[in-house]
Amino acid sequence: MAPTISFARGAPSLDIVDVEGLRAAADRAFQKDPAGMTAYGTAVGYLPLREWIAEQHGVSPERVLVTNGSMQADAFLFEALVSPGDAVIVERPTYDRTLLSLRQRGADVRQVELEPDGIDVAALERVLVAGARPKLAHIIPNFQNPAGYTLSAAKRERLLELAGEHDFVVFEDDPYVALRFAGEAAPTMLSMNPDRVVYASSFSKTVCPGIRVGYLVGPEPLIAQVQKLAVGAYISPNMVAQGIVNEFCRSGLIQSSIETVKRALRERAETLCTALERELPGARFVAPEGGYFLWVDFPRGTDVEALFTAALERGVQFVKGSDFVLEGGESSLRLAYSGVTPVEIEEGVSRLADAYGAVAAAGASADVA
Amino acid sequence: MAPTISFARGAPSLDIVDVEGLRAAADRAFQKDPAGMTAYGTAVGYLPLREWIAEQHGVSPERVLVTNGSMQADAFLFEALVSPGDAVIVERPTYDRTLLSLRQRGADVRQVELEPDGIDVAALERVLVAGARPKLAHIIPNFQNPAGYTLSAAKRERLLELAGEHDFVVFEDDPYVALRFAGEAAPTMLSMNPDRVVYASSFSKTVCPGIRVGYLVGPEPLIAQVQKLAVGAYISPNMVAQGIVNEFCRSGLIQSSIETVKRALRERAETLCTALERELPGARFVAPEGGYFLWVDFPRGTDVEALFTAALERGVQFVKGSDFVLEGGESSLRLAYSGVTPVEIEEGVSRLADAYGAVAAAGASADVA
Repeated sequence: MAPTISFARGAPSLDIVDVEGLRAAADRAFQKDPAGMTAYGTAVGYLPLREWIAEQHGVSPERVLVTNGSMQADAFLFEALVSPGDAVIVERPTYDRTLLSLRQRGADVRQVELEPDGIDVAALERVLVAGARPKLAHIIPNFQNPAGYTLSAAKRERLLELAGEHDFVVFEDDPYVALRFAGEAAPTMLSMNPDRVVYASSFSKTVCPGIRVGYLVGPEPLIAQVQKLAVGAYISPNMVAQGIVNEFCRSGLIQSSIETVKRALRERAETLCTALERELPGARFVAPEGGYFLWVDFPRGTDVEALFTAALERGVQFVKGSDFVLEGGESSLRLAYSGVTPVEIEEGVSRLADAYGAVAAAGASADVA
Repeated sequence: MAPTISFARGAPSLDIVDVEGLRAAADRAFQKDPAGMTAYGTAVGYLPLREWIAEQHGVSPERVLVTNGSMQADAFLFEALVSPGDAVIVERPTYDRTLLSLRQRGADVRQVELEPDGIDVAALERVLVAGARPKLAHIIPNFQNPAGYTLSAAKRERLLELAGEHDFVVFEDDPYVALRFAGEAAPTMLSMNPDRVVYASSFSKTVCPGIRVGYLVGPEPLIAQVQKLAVGAYISPNMVAQGIVNEFCRSGLIQSSIETVKRALRERAETLCTALERELPGARFVAPEGGYFLWVDFPRGTDVEALFTAALERGVQFVKGSDFVLEGGESSLRLAYSGVTPVEIEEGVSRLADAYGAVAAAGASADVA
């Protein structure tokens, strides 16, 4: 059989990673700051990178803490803010690892429907008015994982109003923000209300995932609290990796890397949308304006579980919609286009359509029987 | 005032870190395996490094999991094995972060006296016979932190016998093993009984601390359990850092790095011992055969708390003995000689002796009054 085509993993293909730039950045970083790169450093992260991040967000460095990837930032934040039984708002659907992490902490996870312009703030208000007292709302504002949707400027404002009225923290989880290839950017909620928001992002999508550098921006007392957790967990995050990222950023390599990534993602997203329209006319989706993901809703009753198996048999992988929700999602799926070339996308959608046809035919004959 | 001389931090000085070797290793690693270095990889770690570590210990790679520093390995292991209320044996004194980490987990921490040839196995046996049912015993067998003592071969055997009879895990925490500059090495307990031991070590002392690469070796089911914790914490450890370490190890740079470090440590330890004997005849200590640390016991009644302050006023730092025990330790302290040159050691001990004299004089006049 031909090699499997994976729409499953939200990761870049190697051809859009600037390996030569990383090599050069590593070389210069070791030359420029051998002491800072090789010593334990501090739990808040490599100080020059902390300062660079602070400048990007227009905040003081004391509000920034760098971590070994942004998952680790999430884990620290949840450890600091969420106790068993605490209500936490998340989008529906949302990132499966976030769901799992919150449930493992014993949080009372409340999913609020995600619309193409972001979380349904009216539905959220109803949940709040009905008595929910969430500690925080986890929001992926740009090119959401898994849906690919983006929170509108108006909803950002409304969300912050609700957070103020009902006294919860907005956790703005924003790893894809730099990957906009169409449309207009909205301001970060962090910039709109820095005391109500904790912001997380990462260099996994703009440098590479293997570098494992993420960060938090938040109020100083919270950052100090997370710093203590970080000391206890690992003394300090990886200084070599952060030194390389710092050099990659300050030398401007990150800008050309982002341009490369966006160019590729735009082409991949367009190829995917065109192929889906042509091959799977029953599939509903919103063309993404950036990021890695596209969410597909099939007509109600479509058995995506069976589609998953049929697709696997034909050498194509995706993630089932049900992985991203507490209940339901049986007729939806997530396609990641970040790790596949246009040629693979064409072939992958063709295989997916074939699988869909087979499942639909089996369903029809089962209905008859 | 002259710059402070720090005997406090267990970290190498920059002059004994092979920065040029690291630069070269980084360069080659990005050239040789750009895909492996830049992708997420897997939670067990960068596979070539995992294999290299497995070879060093003569175990299958499935028994090895690489982490972001060995503190993180400890944290995962405690999360996997220690629940609130569980008894855990540790040495007295022991690494302060281990004490803190176990107490934060709510463990019932039992300190058993450390002798110059390692944990007092007779005292441990009495604790066990009296009814303690520990989940694990945390042991730093070589050049212990903070004492600098090493567990004898005979006591390693006895410890494993006790572990078998009383069914607990020996957690062999061994980051200093490669740093022996005198005497004969004993075999690892891992090699003596691989199913009763979980072994942790690190490249912080042989490559550099800022690289943050540590690892666990243990039975496969435990490693699989820790792998799940690692996925939830950070998806995967730092691939760039591990790729650099792998190249550093496989190219033989690590051997010359270890020789450089050992040569410096031997000279520093000898300088320290000679200076202490000359300047502080009341100090009792055992000359270390490797590692970073030397433990000093002063005569009972010496106020090390006051000595700490008096030393700080004279520009010299150490860590108080009381930081490494649950109770007591008031007349002891830890000196780390890894980060100070022989010249600094001479000057530092001279300042310490001056501080000791001042504290003794104050104590004597207080006794009179």
